[in-house]
Order: sequence, then C-alpha cells, then structure tokens
Amino acid sequence: MTDDRILYQSYKDKIISAQQAASFFEDKMVVGSSGFTKAGDSKAVLPAFAKRAEKESIGITLITGASLGLTTDTDLAQNNALYKRMPFQADAGLRNKINEGDIYFIDQHLSETAELLENKHLPQLDFAVIEATYIDENGNIIPTTSVGNSATFAKLANKIIIEINTSIPLKFKGIHDIFIQENYPNRKPINITASDTRIGENFIIIDPEKVVGIVFTELSDSFAQLSQPDAKTTAIAQHLVDFFENEIKEKRLTTSLMPLQVGIGKVANAVMSGLAKGNFKNLTMYSEVLQDSTFELIDSGKMDFASASSITVSEGCYKHLLDHFDDYKDKIILRPQNISNSAEVIRRLGIIAINTAIEFDIYGNVNSTHISGTKMMNGIGGSGDFARNAYLSIFVSQSASKEFNAISHVLPMVSHVDHSEHDVDILVTEQGLADLRGLAPRERAKLIIEKCAHPDYKEELTDYFNRASLHGGHTPHLLEEAFSFHTRFKNTSSMKQNALVKSVY
Amino acid sequence: MTDDRILYQSYKDKIISAQQAASFFEDKMVVGSSGFTKAGDSKAVLPAFAKRAEKESIGITLITGASLGLTTDTDLAQNNALYKRMPFQADAGLRNKINEGDIYFIDQHLSETAELLENKHLPQLDFAVIEATYIDENGNIIPTTSVGNSATFAKLANKIIIEINTSIPLKFKGIHDIFIQENYPNRKPINITASDTRIGENFIIIDPEKVVGIVFTELSDSFAQLSQPDAKTTAIAQHLVDFFENEIKEKRLTTSLMPLQVGIGKVANAVMSGLAKGNFKNLTMYSEVLQDSTFELIDSGKMDFASASSITVSEGCYKHLLDHFDDYKDKIILRPQNISNSAEVIRRLGIIAINTAIEFDIYGNVNSTHISGTKMMNGIGGSGDFARNAYLSIFVSQSASKEFNAISHVLPMVSHVDHSEHDVDILVTEQGLADLRGLAPRERAKLIIEKCAHPDYKEELTDYFNRASLHGGHTPHLLEEAFSFHTRFKNTSSMKQNALVKSVY
Repeated sequence: MTDDRILYQSYKDKIISAQQAASFFEDKMVVGSSGFTKAGDSKAVLPAFAKRAEKESIGITLITGASLGLTTDTDLAQNNALYKRMPFQADAGLRNKINEGDIYFIDQHLSETAELLENKHLPQLDFAVIEATYIDENGNIIPTTSVGNSATFAKLANKIIIEINTSIPLKFKGIHDIFIQENYPNRKPINITASDTRIGENFIIIDPEKVVGIVFTELSDSFAQLSQPDAKTTAIAQHLVDFFENEIKEKRLTTSLMPLQVGIGKVANAVMSGLAKGNFKNLTMYSEVLQDSTFELIDSGKMDFASASSITVSEGCYKHLLDHFDDYKDKIILRPQNISNSAEVIRRLGIIAINTAIEFDIYGNVNSTHISGTKMMNGIGGSGDFARNAYLSIFVSQSASKEFNAISHVLPMVSHVDHSEHDVDILVTEQGLADLRGLAPRERAKLIIEKCAHPDYKEELTDYFNRASLHGGHTPHLLEEAFSFHTRFKNTSSMKQNALVKSVY
Repeated sequence: MTDDRILYQSYKDKIISAQQAASFFEDKMVVGSSGFTKAGDSKAVLPAFAKRAEKESIGITLITGASLGLTTDTDLAQNNALYKRMPFQADAGLRNKINEGDIYFIDQHLSETAELLENKHLPQLDFAVIEATYIDENGNIIPTTSVGNSATFAKLANKIIIEINTSIPLKFKGIHDIFIQENYPNRKPINITASDTRIGENFIIIDPEKVVGIVFTELSDSFAQLSQPDAKTTAIAQHLVDFFENEIKEKRLTTSLMPLQVGIGKVANAVMSGLAKGNFKNLTMYSEVLQDSTFELIDSGKMDFASASSITVSEGCYKHLLDHFDDYKDKIILRPQNISNSAEVIRRLGIIAINTAIEFDIYGNVNSTHISGTKMMNGIGGSGDFARNAYLSIFVSQSASKEFNAISHVLPMVSHVDHSEHDVDILVTEQGLADLRGLAPRERAKLIIEKCAHPDYKEELTDYFNRASLHGGHTPHLLEEAFSFHTRFKNTSSMKQNALVKSVY
C-alpha cells in the first residue's frame, strides 16, 4: 500500500499511528488542519487527539479551512480540547460550547485566514495536519477532496503530519490548482481571468524536514445530507429564474449568466435545480463548494466548468463522481480558499453570488450568523467575500418559519449585521424578489416589505416603517422598538403581536 | 485664453455659458459630475442649474465622485433640484434634506459606483459634466485636482459638458493615471503593484461627438479647513505611533510601514503629523485624498510617493503646491476612484487603513455614517473598500464627547453597522489602543472597554457585558438594552445614568 502512496523514499520510516501523531501536540499549541465543508478533513489525528483529551487536560487552538466532518468538532469540544477555534464550524456540539462561552471562536471571512497567518496577525502554527491522496517523488502532497488553507498551513507550520487517505483514488491528481501568493511587498496579480484558469501546481509543496509523521486512514468524507426542494425553496428558485430571464431580456445578462457562487444547503440545491430546468447554457461556477447540483448541471450539459475549494456531495453523488471521474476531471478545479474566495478574482470575473440569510431587515441588512443577535450558528464563511465583491449579491431566506409562522425572517432591524445594505442587491423569499439596485433606504423598505415579507407580518413592518419615518432620517428607525420582534419572540415564543391568543385558537 | 485650453479645433464653436449648459438638463435626467472631496467639481454648470431650479420645478439624479465644494449641494437641495443623489456627500444643507426624507440618497462604497454604471445596475447617464484643465489636440481632457468617476461618466454618458477651469495650471498634465477596466467577461488584472505604478493614460478619453458644450470657469476648489491637533487627537496619534513602533520591533512591519490610507479630518492630520515626528522613512500612500499632511510628509523627506483620487488641501498648502509643483509632480498620482479604492489593489499592496468611526461597540463593530442609527452624516465613502481589504484596518474615535462627556462613542451595540467586527483590527481612542487581532468577541469586549472606553462609561459597559454574558452566546447581548445608551441620550441629552443629577451639580 505504501508503495503507491508514498513515492518519496525517506518518508517511509515516518509512518506512525494516529495516536502517536496526536501525542505530539502540547497544551496551547496552534494546529492548522485540512478540511473544508467536511471534505478532506483530518479523520485520524484530530479524532485521536480528541480521545487523548478525554483523559488528559490539554487544549489547542485549531484552525481549519472550514467545517470538519465526522463528530470531530463535537468530540474535541466536549473533551475541552479546544482553546480557540477558527475560521468556521457547522457542528452542533461545538456550537453549543461556543455559545455557552466555553470555547473562543473566531468567525472569519474564509479568504482571510491564510493572509492573517502569513502576516503574523495570528499566532505561529506549531503543527499542520493535512489529508493527502499520496506523496509524490519529491515529498510534496496531492490533496484530496478539498484544498482549504492546507497549502498555507504546510508553508508556515513548524511541523507537518500527513494523513494519507487510501479511500481517495490516485487519479485525483490534477484537479487541484495550488497557488501561493508572494509576500508583501512583492505581490503580483492573481492571474485568473476565468473559472478554468490554472495558475499553480497540482500539489502542495512540503518541506520534508518538517514532516514528523505520516498516518494512514481509509475513511470516506462525511457525506452531505441532501433534502429535496420543497414548496418554499422551489418558489424561491422560480423567483430567481424569472429574475435571470428578465435580466437576459434586458440585455444585462446572457444565457450563460455570470460565474455562479452558491451557498450550501436546501435553497442552493433548489436554485441550481431551477437553473437546470431553465433556458441557460455554458454556465460556469466560481464558488467555494462543488455540491450534487454542480455535477447535475454538468451532466445536463448546461455547465461547462466549476471551480471551488472542496467537493462536498452525497454518498450517491460521490460514488457516481468516482465511477465517472474521467468525465469530470477536466471540468473541475479545487483551489486554496484564499483564491476561490479572493476579492480580486471575484470582482474581476463578475460573480453572481447566492447566499442564505438567517434574517434580513427592511433596509436590506443581512444577518448570516447569529440567532437573536447572540448565538452563533455556523459563521460568516465566504458569504462576505462573495457578497461584497460580486457582480450581483443575492440573499435568500424563507419569509417566516415555525408553527403559526412564529418567526419572521424579515425584520425591522437585524439583530446582527454580517452584510450591510451596501453589499446586498437582491433579496428573495418564497413570497417574492426585491430588486434593490439603485434604491435608497426608504425605497428599499417599501419594496422589501411588499415583495419579501410574510403576509402575517406586512402590516406591523409597514407600521414600524411609517412611524419611524415620521421622525425622519436617512434610515428611519425607532431604536426603542427596533428589536421588538426578537424580544417578543423571547417572551412569547412568537414574533406576532397577540401571539398567545392566536396560537390558542 | 481658448488657444492654450482648447487644442482641438472643432470644439471651439461649442463654448457656451453655464446657464446655457444648465438649460440642457430635463426633469428626471441622470447627470454624472466630476468632484471628489470638494476637488475638481463642477463650479459653473451645477450652480447654474441650482439657480435655474429656483424658478422652475425640475430635478435630476446627481452622481458624483464624492462630495462637492462651494454651496452647490446645499443650493441644489434647497431648490428641490435633486431627485436622487449618490454616492457620497458632506454638505449640511443636503444632509438636512436627506434626513428630512425629501431627497433619496444612495450611500455607496466609492469603488463601486463606476462598476454599477458599467453593469447597468444604475440608470443610463444622460449627461456628464467634467472639470478639465484643458482639452488636448485629440479632444481628450486633462482633469484637474481630482479624477473620481469622471472617466466612466465620460465613457457612458449620452452627452458631455466640459468645464475648463483656467485657475488650474497647464502643467497639471501628467499627474493623472486614467485606466478603465475591460468589460466582462474580458476583464484582466489591474496591474498595479506599488503606489507609483502607472497603468493608464494621463487624459480622459472623450468622444467628440458627445460634447455639447464647453464652459469656462476660473474658480478655485473649495479649500479644506484644517483644525490643528488637540490633546485628544494628539493622544490618538501617539497610541498609533507607539503601536507601529512595536510592530516594527516585533518584525511584522519595517520603518516604511505599508502603504497608508488615511481618512479625512482632524484625527487623520494628527496621525500624519505623528508619523512625521516618528522614526519612519520611505513611507508611501495609496489612499483616496492627498491632504496637507501628505505634502508635509513629502517635504519632510519621510514620504516617497502618494497615490489618491483627489487633492484636497488648505489654501496655503494649495499655493505652496502650485509654487513648487515640479518638486511634487513625480511623487503623486491621481487615479479613478474605482482604482484608488480597488479591492484587488488594496489587498495586493497591503494597506494600513486609518479611518474615523462615529461610534463603535464593545465587539468591534463600527458605525461610520448614521447618527443614532437614523440620520446620515456623510456616507461610507471609501472606508469599507479599505477596511475590508486592508493589511491592517484601524478605526479611531474620541472615547466621549460633548459637555460632561454626555456622549460615549464606545457602546454596547452600534446603532448602525458599516464595518462588522470581521473588518476591524485595531480601535483607538485618546484613552488607548485595542489590538483585536486573533481575539474572539468576548475577548474583544473586555479589551475594548479596558483600552478605549471613557472612564465615565467603563463601569456600565462592563456591567452590560457581564450581564449579557450570563445569558451566553458567541456575542453576548441583551437586545432590550442594546441601545439603552442611545435612547437615554434622546431622553436626557446624556448617555449617562443619572445624567440630569450629574449635570446640575
């Protein structure tokens, strides 16, 4: 097995167990690990470290690409093995510990973590743990299903542990494009001018001197759990398809649209399915994650090329991908996340960015991260990188949720701002689509309430806006009432006035 | 006079009066005008249009680079000659009309207006009005003290009016670098790799067919009113100089720092004066505006080069600049504002961005625009372009202001978010400097209160944070109390508890 997975001879005596590798970490060390939306994560060393922390009082600062798979983050969190965690997570167990105040979480724009490390605005990395398909004859590594921050971790860490995952076929070599920017002041343009531009190598450079252990695993990535489009997500998708068709009619877009970035989840899937049915062709993607819907669009002949930082798909799609890998190999690229999410490249290519909001307000400010302004959900991820720099920045949400539509996702004021009104062009709920381009705040408010709010909340939102407007201001608000929907929900479990009465009858 | 100002023969019969030019505008037309921080603005045609609107019911959508000089915006606003205004203003008369709800204002990232016009996400421009030093032999124009959005306005507008300003010496030719990006999908990198990189022409391309009038003026720009550093701004500057010196000691910076962007005003001036006194050399600037302090730093031999989109200086500095123009000519460049504020270039160069906050909160979110969450001050300007993409994003403010320190600028929650905590590395008040790099929200809160808050407010801010923390959350807040400082100020004219008592004794 090691013969085709370790082509660099002097590494062969570095094979150790995951437990041995995990024993290298000392308390308060800083570890950078591969892993982006559950793809290409450490499946041996980090879980072994979580196990070690069951019996030992030890913690690390863990920096990843994005979220990890398995139960790794939960296990680390519950065993108090995390001192600090960044730049993203999507794990219920870790989330609870963050929100209880037990773990410090730093929520970062995904494009920025590598830069912060390079600039020494974050602490020096003691270890990098990187999943690899195999090690080439020069000691460099071929990544697996994600790139994330791995190239930067390998460059900067004092020591490196490689996790060779034998479940990933050797033919994965070639889908990666690894580029590391020069340091200041010698930085040059990132020379990507289309989704399929290649500017780097297909391996991550490794200094053999730093490699202290090689661990073998054979575990697959944690697969994405797909939910089928429902009435709401289908309606959202239809509003978007109608919008795109009108933009084509108005000659602002062609049937190829612009390179797409689509966030993760149910709505994203529905939107992509909508595109598969519409009159579009030669679509491309410049995004963070390749999902099932990406491969469906490629299969349907509507998408020519897709660039991202990871492949996160369902079990069925993964099997299909491996069985037909040669058909896809020339149509996908995985890049470091500071390149997939690069402000420079996103502005140059002109991305249509579609991301999910937890809530948005009548002026178009978006909350992507905090429940009731306090509790972290997952993190801002790449939504800020794309929303700020996109050709069109679109946010989607259901208008209301829970029984009796107890929660309105359209609010007088968001309880936390991740994306200000400056960075939001289009808002969509199942109710409709608000095209905010060229509108001032007071115009935005009327349109958002009209097009996006749930009917149960339109009257109160309008009343808030009207009364606030009496007091003037560029962005009329009544600060005493701005969070009244949120506080009412806290007190009555519903954002509705007279909710108790309504829910009884 | 026209012989050396109009070198393109067929333009000579297009000379008209400002009144004639202003008569071309029709109701609801969209006009793009030169002008950036009071520099290079229309000094004849827009004022004449304001005059026309005194007697006539007519309004336009006015798009500029940034703020205008003279009383132009006030006059236009008071005569109801503005239907919509973007992307920035800094005019008391206009501000009042915006906040009364009489004029729609669109507050934009200054890098984005040109793009929105190119993408047709804003309406078609009927007219461009552009101040010029002179018209060259091909009919193209040499700009004056700013570039702003003029090149894009000239490219996209149906018709063009040129204002030749004879107070600007002919030798201004050469300080501009005019570059217009290719359209999608053929965009290429913006090839700037240092403040002094030239990538364009030193004139704005004009299609002679579109020129409908040439107007002569001789009015100077409205000069900057400088206020001298006081105890607070000097303290802020000293904290920053100390910080930079420590970064040099820690080898994260050299004595040349990184290219500087500095916002406008009193604090900026104080900071730049601080740099002039410190142990720095070979400084450069990649900013929006060249101010008095820029030329002082050049004079002192500490600054090698400065790039921006306008020159906005005091009367004395302007006279000095003209008298010694040949000494400065090779040390400054004026660029279009989508290049001076380009996300791509700012990230590549690694800018130290220093901007002013109206208020910030204990988690590091910054409000740059809205008084009490509702009333527009000036606009976000370029602060978002720089803060998001900077190597270091620094915001400065006084900790408290007004008699009895009735207003705290450090708050439980900002009443409006322009820059989220993700985009803020360093906060400085006269009390001290909070270095937020690598800190989670709860760590940030403690440090911001400790270092930046005014002593009169520390106890209450700490109490808020402690009580909010009891309820958990990644970013602890009590939504019922989040704006209590603001609402107390509204009710008692002070943010202090028991303010009435305190101010009586």
